[in-house]
Amino acid sequence: MQKVNLQEKLNLFNEYWAPKIVGNINGSQVKLAKLKGEFVWHKHDNEDEMFFIIKGKLLIKFKDHNLSLQEGEFLIIPKGVEHMPVAEEEVHVMLIEPKTTLHTGDIKCDLTKNNQERI
Amino acid sequence: MQKVNLQEKLNLFNEYWAPKIVGNINGSQVKLAKLKGEFVWHKHDNEDEMFFIIKGKLLIKFKDHNLSLQEGEFLIIPKGVEHMPVAEEEVHVMLIEPKTTLHTGDIKCDLTKNNQERI
Repeated sequence: MQKVNLQEKLNLFNEYWAPKIVGNINGSQVKLAKLKGEFVWHKHDNEDEMFFIIKGKLLIKFKDHNLSLQEGEFLIIPKGVEHMPVAEEEVHVMLIEPKTTLHTGDIKCDLTKNNQERI
Repeated sequence: MQKVNLQEKLNLFNEYWAPKIVGNINGSQVKLAKLKGEFVWHKHDNEDEMFFIIKGKLLIKFKDHNLSLQEGEFLIIPKGVEHMPVAEEEVHVMLIEPKTTLHTGDIKCDLTKNNQERI
């Protein structure tokens, strides 16, 4: 059992859109990611996904509206809801989602990371 | 689907050791709590519990060691592990735990809140 310091872990990597696993809890995983630019439209058919903003501003586009999140805010995107994260400047996020979740959801593309690394 | 601003939610209550529900994710709940003083020794037989420190310093006592957590750090306490949180000064935390989790775990005492409020 070890505590996790978010900043220390964030210092260990610089890739964008490549979530790193930092904890396991009840079948879910806690992940950290750095985001910049546009991701892809996708949804997770069976899992809710939590975005907690550590640094920066994240726009999340939905089919019928957009939501802007800033430091100290979180959003839980219910399963099945199509979304596309957009980070105009670099954003640091903590994600919580089931172990089985692929970050690009139902879409496989160049951005898809099949084997997420634990740090 | 609504975003949650931690500070706005924290401004809505002042009770200590009375977690408030602020989100639901895959059968778990996200909660916010203000802590001050000593809690009780307890464990959760079937659930891991995540403490994320928003403000202040939280000491978590275990039977064989102590761990000190500060802002920007989290700890996942595996199921079955006895622990007692101690907050010398006021601490604000975000908790993630299954819906079924009673915050005093296997112990029922004056501090136990059976009906946790959603804010």
